Amino acid sequence: MVKIAIIGAGSAAWSSRILVDLILTPSLYGSEVALMDINEDRLNLIYGFSVRYAREYGANIRFTKTMDRREAIRDADFVVNVALAKGHGFYGRLIEISEAHGYYRGINSVEWNMVLDYYTILGYYQFKLALDIARDIEELSPGAWLIQIANPVFEATTLVSRETKVKTIGLCHGHLDYVNLVKTLGLNPEDVDVEMIGFNHVIWLTKFKYRGEDAYPLIDEWIAGKAEEYWREWRKSQWNPFDIQMSPAAVDMYRVYGLFPIGDTVRGGTWKYHWNFETKQYWYGPLGGPDSEIGRGIYLAFLDMGLATLREALADPSKPLANTVPPVMSGETLVPLIDSMVNDKPGTYQVNVLNGDSIPGIPSDVAVEMPVIVDGRGVHRLSFNQLPPRIMKYVMILRLMRAEWALQAFKEGGRDSLFEWLIIDPRTKSTSQVNNVIDAVLKAPGNEEMARHFS
Amino acid sequence: MVKIAIIGAGSAAWSSRILVDLILTPSLYGSEVALMDINEDRLNLIYGFSVRYAREYGANIRFTKTMDRREAIRDADFVVNVALAKGHGFYGRLIEISEAHGYYRGINSVEWNMVLDYYTILGYYQFKLALDIARDIEELSPGAWLIQIANPVFEATTLVSRETKVKTIGLCHGHLDYVNLVKTLGLNPEDVDVEMIGFNHVIWLTKFKYRGEDAYPLIDEWIAGKAEEYWREWRKSQWNPFDIQMSPAAVDMYRVYGLFPIGDTVRGGTWKYHWNFETKQYWYGPLGGPDSEIGRGIYLAFLDMGLATLREALADPSKPLANTVPPVMSGETLVPLIDSMVNDKPGTYQVNVLNGDSIPGIPSDVAVEMPVIVDGRGVHRLSFNQLPPRIMKYVMILRLMRAEWALQAFKEGGRDSLFEWLIIDPRTKSTSQVNNVIDAVLKAPGNEEMARHFS
Repeated sequence: MVKIAIIGAGSAAWSSRILVDLILTPSLYGSEVALMDINEDRLNLIYGFSVRYAREYGANIRFTKTMDRREAIRDADFVVNVALAKGHGFYGRLIEISEAHGYYRGINSVEWNMVLDYYTILGYYQFKLALDIARDIEELSPGAWLIQIANPVFEATTLVSRETKVKTIGLCHGHLDYVNLVKTLGLNPEDVDVEMIGFNHVIWLTKFKYRGEDAYPLIDEWIAGKAEEYWREWRKSQWNPFDIQMSPAAVDMYRVYGLFPIGDTVRGGTWKYHWNFETKQYWYGPLGGPDSEIGRGIYLAFLDMGLATLREALADPSKPLANTVPPVMSGETLVPLIDSMVNDKPGTYQVNVLNGDSIPGIPSDVAVEMPVIVDGRGVHRLSFNQLPPRIMKYVMILRLMRAEWALQAFKEGGRDSLFEWLIIDPRTKSTSQVNNVIDAVLKAPGNEEMARHFS
Repeated sequence: MVKIAIIGAGSAAWSSRILVDLILTPSLYGSEVALMDINEDRLNLIYGFSVRYAREYGANIRFTKTMDRREAIRDADFVVNVALAKGHGFYGRLIEISEAHGYYRGINSVEWNMVLDYYTILGYYQFKLALDIARDIEELSPGAWLIQIANPVFEATTLVSRETKVKTIGLCHGHLDYVNLVKTLGLNPEDVDVEMIGFNHVIWLTKFKYRGEDAYPLIDEWIAGKAEEYWREWRKSQWNPFDIQMSPAAVDMYRVYGLFPIGDTVRGGTWKYHWNFETKQYWYGPLGGPDSEIGRGIYLAFLDMGLATLREALADPSKPLANTVPPVMSGETLVPLIDSMVNDKPGTYQVNVLNGDSIPGIPSDVAVEMPVIVDGRGVHRLSFNQLPPRIMKYVMILRLMRAEWALQAFKEGGRDSLFEWLIIDPRTKSTSQVNNVIDAVLKAPGNEEMARHFS
């Protein structure tokens, strides 16, 4: 069949779900899955999990493991990049350093990019890794698809698509949050027809139909009649910082920009929603959303718990792994998408690819997130209406500008790249503040390579 | 011959120079010049000046005066808009109000638009007037050229060109400041070949040749060897706040962005150059440039002095007006441009027109400033290379975004338009600061119409 390389497979919580999806997809049996990570312990963990789960389930998939990226990529048909170079701890320290200089939640957090592990101006290591992987593909498995799942999907997909010949798709599960909207309105997701387009983490509900009728009036009714009560309950019981699809922030964005924001879009916005923890609580609930100091802590704890759960399950050979990760499809689109390509099963997928002329008013060489048709011949773009002027001007141009700046900074380097980024930031009060935070970030332990790049 | 309508002709200092240019251009004799202003006193002043100057010089030009805009525009071949609706005093009060809420030099001053009388987010009355004039042309003199000289030339030219069928050219004399660069380097302007492109007030020296050779190295030599001494003298003797073409700000912009900024471009930049008066002094000399509190005062005094000089000259019928305004061409391109069109004399002019596909990477429906060929058949665009990535990304996209926001605010109105403008401003420290300054600006006496628009 095919060879699927997973770079950064030690991202165990996420990988385990994907690997179970593969194990549950008989039309991909006979394939090889090359697990690669630079963390040997995590690599062994996910390898052990995969081999045992496949055996318990009776799936004919051959798993291999390696710490050599090039070995994993050689002759692959699909290369899935889920790696976070440097890891969460490193970036946590950069956030602390930034905050000491007046940049709440770090210099990387800017308008419409408040998602803490979406590294743009700090994306140096992520961009370099994505590009290195793509260069490896050009050399070792030309023709393979690169599936970019590691953030920042928007910038990384744009970069790799511009700079290499590799067929690249960015994938993000954030859009699936539309289901929370649908369920909160009391609708059956199966009767709903939705379309969401934009940039990754900045997507808007451009079509919302319920049994063939425009369902936006149902959102308006919910806001007018039920939102207050919903928020009262939600404020009392919110335990998941990601539970913000129906938050006051989302409703306010809808009021201002005219379309409902979906998924991680809600985490963005201007500093209006993010000045400080109290502001975040007002808009995102008691935990302040996933990007507050509390929210990020919970998120990292979720990741640790996922890892611990896997370890525990593997430690006891007597209990089937299906007790821990049940044998049901995760809802992630990666494996179905690969299945569509390998077995020529046409399907519609929400992906990030260069715009071409799909969304009017957005340059052709910028990655947009939108539904496409995928089949054995690859990705087939559709055409969409222009986004409304308010969204184009106040949101998309602004977000695109930051993407271009981040990529420019990566390509060109130099201290000015960081200076320009910061001198337009509302948290900046003086030129010396900018210079001081740049010095401090570049001097952070482990950041020597980035420091050279921006010196 | 032709009819030339001048809307806002009471802008006397400027108009007198243009009217003398006309009087000195025999190939336009036989033409009618319709002077229009809503200020009767100023209108009479400029009318009296024109009639007498033409008589003294023996020029065959018929001057008429009116306070009725439509009368001036009817059957015109050229409509020249130099009017500042509401006048400088009104905007001075809006600056004071903004400063009381923490917005030094007013909410209209933002990155790459620090020029105080270049009204963008506060451009409501200017945009409305430009559009009204264009609508009048469509009705009363279809086929006439609209020459937009009143600021903001960038936004107004873009707006009118997008919204009407009127042939529109934006004109600004700022690019002529390249001569100061040339002279400071000790070169003869006649041996120099220059090209400057961009947006109005954001133009860059994309070609600079001296006797056929690239002359940029001469700038580098000047900076390395002579700039310090030049600045020492300049700091001691600067009396004209507009004398900033060779300022530390210009040299710093050249260092950061890679091309030399020309004319009003130097007044722009980020807040790096503009935080407060001391910062402005560092970059623009002891007067802080034309947009500091001191600089603006001197600028307005210049205007008053020009007016007083004209009044004085007219008051004494015994002295020829040529003693006050000498009979030499001003260097402004308006009259030569009209002459080129009327008499089919091909010439190259620096104008602002929709980009089309002249400058790659800038949308076609945005007004750019660039040289064009003008002759009896109109404006002929040329093609240029793309601006360097640093300038495109860090400057042009940012400036364009603000232009689009200003035009969106004009078209759509609503308080959110002002809120979005301010929430990304580095002077903004809180949401309430934004709301307070919006309230204060909209409550300013005389601002009732704008208040309705943004309510």
